[in-house]
Amino acid sequence: MKEVTIGIDIGGTNTKIGVVDRDARILAQGKVLTATYKKAEDFVEAVHREIQSLLRDSGDVELKAIGIGAPNGNYCKGTIEHAPNLNWKGIVPLAKLFGKYYPVPVVLTNDANAAALGEMIYGGAKGMKNFIILTLGTGLGSGIVINGELVYGHTGFAGEMGHLTMEPFGRECGCGRQGCLEAYVSATGIVKTVLELFAERRDPSPLRKIPADELTSKDIAEAANNGDQIALAAFEQTAEMLATAINNAAAFCSPEAVFLFGGLAQSGDLLLDPLSRFVDENIMGYYRKSLKIIPSSLKEADAAILGASGLAWNQIK
Amino acid sequence: MKEVTIGIDIGGTNTKIGVVDRDARILAQGKVLTATYKKAEDFVEAVHREIQSLLRDSGDVELKAIGIGAPNGNYCKGTIEHAPNLNWKGIVPLAKLFGKYYPVPVVLTNDANAAALGEMIYGGAKGMKNFIILTLGTGLGSGIVINGELVYGHTGFAGEMGHLTMEPFGRECGCGRQGCLEAYVSATGIVKTVLELFAERRDPSPLRKIPADELTSKDIAEAANNGDQIALAAFEQTAEMLATAINNAAAFCSPEAVFLFGGLAQSGDLLLDPLSRFVDENIMGYYRKSLKIIPSSLKEADAAILGASGLAWNQIK
Repeated sequence: MKEVTIGIDIGGTNTKIGVVDRDARILAQGKVLTATYKKAEDFVEAVHREIQSLLRDSGDVELKAIGIGAPNGNYCKGTIEHAPNLNWKGIVPLAKLFGKYYPVPVVLTNDANAAALGEMIYGGAKGMKNFIILTLGTGLGSGIVINGELVYGHTGFAGEMGHLTMEPFGRECGCGRQGCLEAYVSATGIVKTVLELFAERRDPSPLRKIPADELTSKDIAEAANNGDQIALAAFEQTAEMLATAINNAAAFCSPEAVFLFGGLAQSGDLLLDPLSRFVDENIMGYYRKSLKIIPSSLKEADAAILGASGLAWNQIK
Repeated sequence: MKEVTIGIDIGGTNTKIGVVDRDARILAQGKVLTATYKKAEDFVEAVHREIQSLLRDSGDVELKAIGIGAPNGNYCKGTIEHAPNLNWKGIVPLAKLFGKYYPVPVVLTNDANAAALGEMIYGGAKGMKNFIILTLGTGLGSGIVINGELVYGHTGFAGEMGHLTMEPFGRECGCGRQGCLEAYVSATGIVKTVLELFAERRDPSPLRKIPADELTSKDIAEAANNGDQIALAAFEQTAEMLATAINNAAAFCSPEAVFLFGGLAQSGDLLLDPLSRFVDENIMGYYRKSLKIIPSSLKEADAAILGASGLAWNQIK
């Protein structure tokens, strides 16, 4: 009988569910429409039915643990707390709700922390004791591993590098504060940087023909690949601020590597080249040459399920 | 027979040595003049002779381990590396040199990391799994404990919060970079802030009568206690920048407490009051009310020896 874990990735629209073995093989996967369920209990029941069906499809398996990546997931309490993009308000005891159906450990955390465990168990961080993963999507998430353990902190909510204050009186952030890293370094952040550059510079750019509300980071990457000066400058500025944050992370916990994951990270050398240059120019002597910056080795399509499943394997190791 | 450790605190001028029991009692203490010894081997021999004499004075004891706090001390390698204020250049294998005399574990780290272990084993951080200590002296040192373990990182040099970049094009720092936290938040940093305020403001101040080279943080604390507007503004600015660094530390590792140690921290409410206010004003919602800012409970005079001895006890726990 093959040992498996279930990885569940809860997003505002869809919830992805996969049955995963120790070798990162997804034996079966399915999904549930998150937004359909007004009550968390009904959502959990629907996920449970889907899990039953997936386990039947997976052959002769023994379920060892369930891992869940969820917005505002609190590992210490097994709860989702005040997630702005979910129907269920307040504090939802999600691990406990799943516990009613399954007599195995059920653990949850946010998606970036899950990504860190995915990278550690299945990806490029295998064998590393100290590393960070940055997930560059609409926002900026982070998962931090120190001494071989994911950092949850006293509250269960550690690892929010997207909310490092980079500019005390800077851009408004969704968290209600100002100047957070993710207001600059994220898909939405680089759009804002381009809008600023429109004002500051006179360079013509095809991007100026796109209404502000419709401009995306993909448009910017495409323009940069065509040599557009505004778009290239935006990548430079994004890389420069991210380099400061990474060098500060080095002064904090001296990681062996920083992994980059998600949309912006996939713009490849557009971001990575200036980033490596800025990091190297200004990193403190102690850490120079010892810190690697590398793209995540997990496939975007599988990463969320693998991360959540990695969380589960890590729990029972 | 009573179990003891030796705590050694190496400073540029003096090296303090103490025999410490499990209850934080310093049974005997002495010192050696660091700067006298051109060769590390001779220094270690002198410390060894002093230890022998202190052990004789301590009664019936069994030495379990030796802990050393040293500038640029690398825990992972047991070395002092390129310490600017010591005679011994390059990389000094200090733990190995002591190992020739003693068949017990010999461990070393920098003084701020040692202070963290002192606070954890003997002080206000007893029982805490996640906390930070900031040592505010000439510079700013930090020791970070996560999941109950001191953070050394991949290089052995983690926990350098004094070198967080706060102002990318800011004040020159002794590390060769610009805008580091310790160029603002330290005894020397607050002096620079007062010099800036002299230029920016017109308020009269007795501090203006002191030559820049002679102005000290003690003068500033004294003036602030007398209601001097420049000095009070300097404490406000210092607190504001430190608050940003502490809130960033919260986003990183969500500690239960930040302990303040050293000269500036002893200016008491002058720093602590505005600091708590600025932290509370701008901390991310997740961490509000969960993060305590407290003065270290270790006595300044004993802290260095207790910290180094804490490092030793921690090693054999």
